[in-house]
Parts: sequence; structure tokens; C-alpha cells
Amino acid sequence: MLRTGETICAPATSGRGAIAVIRISGPKSLEICKRIFFPADQKVMIDNQKGYSIVYGEIRSDNELIDDVLVSIFRAPHSYTGEDSIEISCHASPYIQHKVLELLIKHGALPAQAGEFTQRAFLNGKMDLSQAEAVADIVASESRAAHRIAMSQMRGEFSDEINILRADLLHFASLIELELDFGEEDVEFADRKELEDIVERVLKIAKDLASSFSLGNAIKNGVPVVITGSPNTGKSTLLNALLKEDRAIVSEIPGTTRDAIEDMAIIDGVQFRFTDTAGLRDTDDIIENLGIKKTHEKIRTAAIILMVIDINDSLVQINDTIDRVRNTVRESDTGKIILLNKTDTAEQGKRDEIRNNISLTGDESMLFISALTGEGIDILKENLVRIAGNASLDSDNVIISNIRHYHALLQVIDSLERVKQGLKGNLQEDLIATDIRQAIHYLGEITGQITSDEILDNIFRNFCIGK
Amino acid sequence: MLRTGETICAPATSGRGAIAVIRISGPKSLEICKRIFFPADQKVMIDNQKGYSIVYGEIRSDNELIDDVLVSIFRAPHSYTGEDSIEISCHASPYIQHKVLELLIKHGALPAQAGEFTQRAFLNGKMDLSQAEAVADIVASESRAAHRIAMSQMRGEFSDEINILRADLLHFASLIELELDFGEEDVEFADRKELEDIVERVLKIAKDLASSFSLGNAIKNGVPVVITGSPNTGKSTLLNALLKEDRAIVSEIPGTTRDAIEDMAIIDGVQFRFTDTAGLRDTDDIIENLGIKKTHEKIRTAAIILMVIDINDSLVQINDTIDRVRNTVRESDTGKIILLNKTDTAEQGKRDEIRNNISLTGDESMLFISALTGEGIDILKENLVRIAGNASLDSDNVIISNIRHYHALLQVIDSLERVKQGLKGNLQEDLIATDIRQAIHYLGEITGQITSDEILDNIFRNFCIGK
Repeated sequence: MLRTGETICAPATSGRGAIAVIRISGPKSLEICKRIFFPADQKVMIDNQKGYSIVYGEIRSDNELIDDVLVSIFRAPHSYTGEDSIEISCHASPYIQHKVLELLIKHGALPAQAGEFTQRAFLNGKMDLSQAEAVADIVASESRAAHRIAMSQMRGEFSDEINILRADLLHFASLIELELDFGEEDVEFADRKELEDIVERVLKIAKDLASSFSLGNAIKNGVPVVITGSPNTGKSTLLNALLKEDRAIVSEIPGTTRDAIEDMAIIDGVQFRFTDTAGLRDTDDIIENLGIKKTHEKIRTAAIILMVIDINDSLVQINDTIDRVRNTVRESDTGKIILLNKTDTAEQGKRDEIRNNISLTGDESMLFISALTGEGIDILKENLVRIAGNASLDSDNVIISNIRHYHALLQVIDSLERVKQGLKGNLQEDLIATDIRQAIHYLGEITGQITSDEILDNIFRNFCIGK
Repeated sequence: MLRTGETICAPATSGRGAIAVIRISGPKSLEICKRIFFPADQKVMIDNQKGYSIVYGEIRSDNELIDDVLVSIFRAPHSYTGEDSIEISCHASPYIQHKVLELLIKHGALPAQAGEFTQRAFLNGKMDLSQAEAVADIVASESRAAHRIAMSQMRGEFSDEINILRADLLHFASLIELELDFGEEDVEFADRKELEDIVERVLKIAKDLASSFSLGNAIKNGVPVVITGSPNTGKSTLLNALLKEDRAIVSEIPGTTRDAIEDMAIIDGVQFRFTDTAGLRDTDDIIENLGIKKTHEKIRTAAIILMVIDINDSLVQINDTIDRVRNTVRESDTGKIILLNKTDTAEQGKRDEIRNNISLTGDESMLFISALTGEGIDILKENLVRIAGNASLDSDNVIISNIRHYHALLQVIDSLERVKQGLKGNLQEDLIATDIRQAIHYLGEITGQITSDEILDNIFRNFCIGK
């Protein structure tokens, strides 16, 4: 995939807006552009233009006028890729975009591969690998929380943490390798206590980062919330009440509608992925059992479970419903909210009766709501956001959301655990040194200090064309 | 809708590309932008920047970093709208776009209405009304032919024609009104012959323009082609053969796929809209008759009919099929192509037998094809393009494609016909003058010299937001 001597081009926008932007990057950007672009002011030569300037003119193919366009000029190294770059802003007609790309390719540009602009930015030292990966996350971010994580990563906050860890381990490695050099003289240069402290410190941070992944991943892809409950308990009304506000916001920006396999909603900056399920009950019907099995699976992968119960049910029924969910989900890190719905139809005293007779465990909370009138919905939203970890949104902790980083961190932790055991068990220095070098290697993979074509291909393949 | 003192904003791109562009236009563009945009180079002040320059920096909301962006600055009157304008190029995340628009609105911008940027360009004299309308057609153009018509209109070629006609009629009006002033003295200033010549000349051009509408409209929306024929004659294979090449081209540009109610294909720069229909045959079945009635309707509105016939059918069958179509479509301006399909399976001598026994009318042609092997498909494509009027693509004639212009031209023609009759019948000058003024009025409506809020609203309502 590496072909940095070439000049590449691709549309940077998609869809049917008013304008489209076509990007060109590489050493021949200006030369190629000159062949198809004719400034309105004939005295202007685009090769004489400074970077960060715009020229108005025409794209022509032979004598056919293709479009009136704006051409933005960027000069190496002061561009996104670090190379000479051009952005052509044209009318968003499919014909025009196609024709402009065709002309660029005819005059020597290559169609860009997925992520190739950002890959060049990485290769030219404009950003490290984890920052480059954050670019794709930023483009995809729909919620404030997802945006915040991606932006922090792009700004290098995660890289900074990794680089500190790496510096610590390099220091450790230099100490232990020095010892190794003088091995036969049986000198102990490195203070074992100091070594242990370094490993402990790095290990703790690596573990904290790794454990932030489940939150980061949920925020990036939407926190999975399962709504469970029998028919007629008001599940659909509840879902509509939760989605209402968000749908209006999303529809303001063209092109942002998405497949409705699951319902997405952004509440207070956090994106949630709601799945409505059939109720949990015992049955002999094989088909129905299959459906219930699916429900069980969904409930087990949920971060939050909303149990919708009709407040008018008997205490026995209510207890029974709660027990079924409790028996399905035994993990205590799944938040469970018991929603006693239809308060607008409940008899006086029913709330107290329920409060006095249902006991909750530590990961459970109970709310009285009316999906119909809206009573309790705001408190429910607050609860959702709190459980999803909104606190993290306003803290300065780095949260990771990239599975590649997570896997690398697991390897780092693994290596460091071996180092820790080695130090305790007075393992030979050369074996400890090997494990330390491995940990350093995996940290380097995150930021791209150590990398391979294969890793790069895997990363940038998931980008869109034009980024 | 007119609110030119305000500053407006809208996304100019749509969909999920790498970048998105948000447009701001109006007197407070720079002032509003300054409140949310912070140049990376702190010495830079955007109000001091020249037009056609780009500044790199951050969009911030309070202390939250929203995005790293490029801000393009345009200064009145050297911008699309003729006003101070800003384009913010940000990452195409829904969250970021939403947040940037929210911030702009918070600081005093109004969300732009559909077509409001182009409407401002019109109101500020950057283009006339028919040129403004062409902008929407350019954005929508998918084929070379549609693009060419729209581009010619945007460049003012149509407006130039209209303005010449208008000047002629104004000259005519001045002559006849002079006569009117001296009416009681019975002086005839205007040479009747000269007046008749002017009217004839304008009338001919107006009629030519109006009659180009059916071609222009077909090119803009796709030339309607109906494929008719009995089951198993190979209609689907034919359709696939015709669509094959085009599908690949369209899919190269993200976001250009479209509803497949009808199949669209661009052949040699002309867009065709193919409809596959059931065959035409007699039946007593009521439901089937309904289907056949629909087929009849489609055939009647087609510009081109492809009659697909199995070459192995008997001469009687072949003649019968052709006759049915002939009886349905009596208009001679519908192109009819008889396709004798499955040549790969035909016996030797069958072609000659058909050629010698089937006689064609002037608007019919006959081709031997094999949709399966591709034999004859290229010739068929040439025929389609020829019938659709490709000749016009390379001529310098102005073609109109806008129904509003068409209706205005019909009114112009109507008025001028009355003037012509009036001149012949020695009608009173004041009545002739009224008709002439009416013709001038309708010509003025096309280019927008004469306009009303209602006309403008109707025109720009059909634009997309951000254009």
C-alpha cells in the first residue's frame, strides 16, 4: 500500500449536498491540477500561489466546461498529509464529481485507497498511529461522549500516557540490561525495589486503561440497553418517550439517518442502543422458546436492563418478573432498573405497598414512571446516563475505545505480570529483559513507533475513501 | 423569506464523507465566526484576513474542543452570495456538524432556508433568475447531456437569448406607443411591415425554445424508454446488458445510488429511464386487463419503445406483436425499435425471411440482437442515443429544461400570436401595446427582471438546504 511518491485523489465528501470536495495529495498535486483548472483571473498561476489560499476558476476537459470551482492550495509540510495538497470544491453533481476524478486520474493521479490521506499524515510524522486512528472515530462520532473520547485521542492525550509508560519501561530495560552486561561479575546495578515499583506503576496504569475499554467501547458504539417486560406493560410507549427528543436532533443534519435494527438515542451526550425484547416466561412451545433464548442472550450482553412492569400487577407477579431477570443476569456490573409503569392508572397506596415489599440488590434501582404522561422519564434518563458512566465524561481520565489498543494493552499487562513474577522469583535477568522488551514492543505498536505494513493495512482499510 | 440583513448558516455537504462543509453568509459572518473559531496561530485575526484565504484552527464551545477545522474567508462582493461569507471545513461527524451549527445559531446566525444562499446571489445581482435555477439542475445532473444543458443555462446562454428577444420587443413597444401618443393625429410612425417582422422573428425563436423543452426535460429527468414484449423473449437479459456498464460508474461515487423503481442508465452521456412492462395481449381476465392498461399508459408516455421479440417466433406472431404496439402508439414522434432477440439460437435464413416480410414505417427501425452474447447491443445503444437527440448535445442550440421557463414561453407565444393577428386585422394600437407588454412581462419573469416573492419562494423552495 505504501506509495508515497504518487499523487492520490478522492472525494472527501459523500452524498447529495450542495457542494462536494475532491482532495488531491502528493508531489504532483499542483502540476496535475494546473492541467484541468483555469483561474478566472488569467494572471493567476496556481503554482505561484501561497499555501492556505483559494483560487476561483473553471475545470475544463478539452473545450468542455465541467464546473466553476474553488481550488484551495496547501503546500508541504503545512497540510493534512504533510504533502502538497489541493482541495477542489465543486457542485455536488454525480456527473461533475465523476468527471473531475476522471480528469485527475487521466493526468497522473491515482485513486486514493481507504484511509490513504491519513496514512500519509502518519507516515509524514503529522500524527502518531493512535492519533490517526482517532480521526476515523471522530468522523463517526454521533454523541458528545464518543466525540470527547475520540478528540482526546486525536489530540494525543492517550499517546502521551503511553509514551510515559514506554519511557519508564525503557529506563527499566536499560537498568536490567546493564546488569546483564556485567552479569558474570554478579553485580546488581538495578535496585530490585525500584524495578518492582516501576513495573507496579506501569502495570496499574495499563490495567486502568484496559479496563476503561468496556466503557469506551460502549460509548463509541452506543451503550447497549435491553428493555424487557411482558406485552402490554408499555414497552413501546417507553421507547418512544426515550427516543422522541433525539430523533428530531438527528434529522436536522442531512444523511445522518441510520438503519433502525436497533433504536439509537443520545441522552445528555451519551449514545444508547435500545433493544426491545419479548418477555421472559416459561413455555413448552419450541418456537417461543427460541425467541426467549435470544432474549436471554441479549440480556446477557446488555450494559443496562430496563425491566418494565405494570404497576397494577400483583406483588407476586412483580417479584416473579424481577426474579427471572435476576436469574438470567448474574453479573453485578450490569445495571438493572425496575420500572413500575402506568403510575397514572395505579391505585393510591400501591407505590408504598411495592416499596415496602420488594427488596433490591446493590446493582438495582426502582423507579415509578408513566411512559404515557412522561412522569419519571427525566429521572430515568439521569439514571441511564449515570450508570453508563457519565462521570467519566467530565473527568480527565483517558478512556480507550479502540479494540486494537485494548489487545495491545492486554499483551503489555501479560508481559509485565511475568516481569513482576520474575523479579519476585529472582528469575534470570535475560528472561526478565525479554519480557520487558516485549511490553515495550506492544506499547510501541499502539503509537506506531513499531509497526508493519500489515498493521497499517488493517488499520486504514477500515477508513472511508477520502480520509 | 427575504431577510438579507441576517446572517445565515447551513451544512453545504450531506452524508457521511470524511469532511463536511458548513456555510455562513451575511454581514455578521466574520463577527459570529470569531466567537467560536480560534486560529492555531494566535497572531492571526480572521477579521484582518483577506478574502480567498484559509485559516487553520479550533472550534471551541466554552472550554470544550469541538474540532480542528479549516476556515475559508470570502469578502463581499467577491463571494457566491455577494456577501461576506465563511466556509468551515470540519470532520463529517454528525455530532460536530450539529454542534458547529448550534454554536453559530447561538451567536446570532439563522438556519438557512432551502436555496437561500443562491437566492441571495440572485438578489445581490451575482446571477439572474434562470441562472440561479440552473444551479439546482447542475447539482442534480447525472449525465453529460443534463450537465451540459444546466451549465449552458448557468453561464447565461439562455438568458442572453431571452434578453435579445426582450430588447426586440421593447423596441417594438416603443414604436407602437409613440404611435399611440400621437393617435388622434392619425400618424403611423411604425412601419407595419417592420413590426410584423419583429414579431415573426421573436415568435419563431420563442417557439423553437419552447419546443426544445420536451427534449430538455427528457434529458434532465432521463429519456423514458419502455421495454415491451412477451415473457421469455429476453427482456430482463436485455435490461441487464444495457445497465451493466453504467452501474459500475455510478457506484464509484459514494451516495449516488438511487431508488430503483425504474432502472436508470447513462449511455454515451444521455440518461435513460427504462421501464420493463408486461406484454400486450388480449385477455378476458379483469386483473390482467388492469395490468395491460397500465402498460398502455406507460407506452404512450415513452419517448422510445423497445419491442422485444423472439426471432424464432413465426412471421404471423411477429407481425401481430408489432401491430399491437402500433395500435397503442399512434404518435409518430415516439421512436420504435423492433428487437429480434436470441439471434444466437436462430436458424440460418431466418433474418432474411423477416427482413423480406416485415415492412417498417418511418419512425421504426429493426435490429437483430442477442442480449445473451451481446450481439447488436452497441448498435442498439447508438440508436437509443440518436433517437434521444444526441445531435443536440453537440449543437450550439439552447435547450430549455425548466418547466417554469416553458410555461412562461407559452404565455409569450400566446401574447405574440395575438399581436400578430392584431397587426393583420388592423387592431387598435392600444390593444396591441397591451399584448406586447404582456409578452415582455413574461420574458422578464424568466430572467427575474420582473419577479414577486411568491415566484421566488416557489423557485428556491425546491433547492436543497445549503445551496
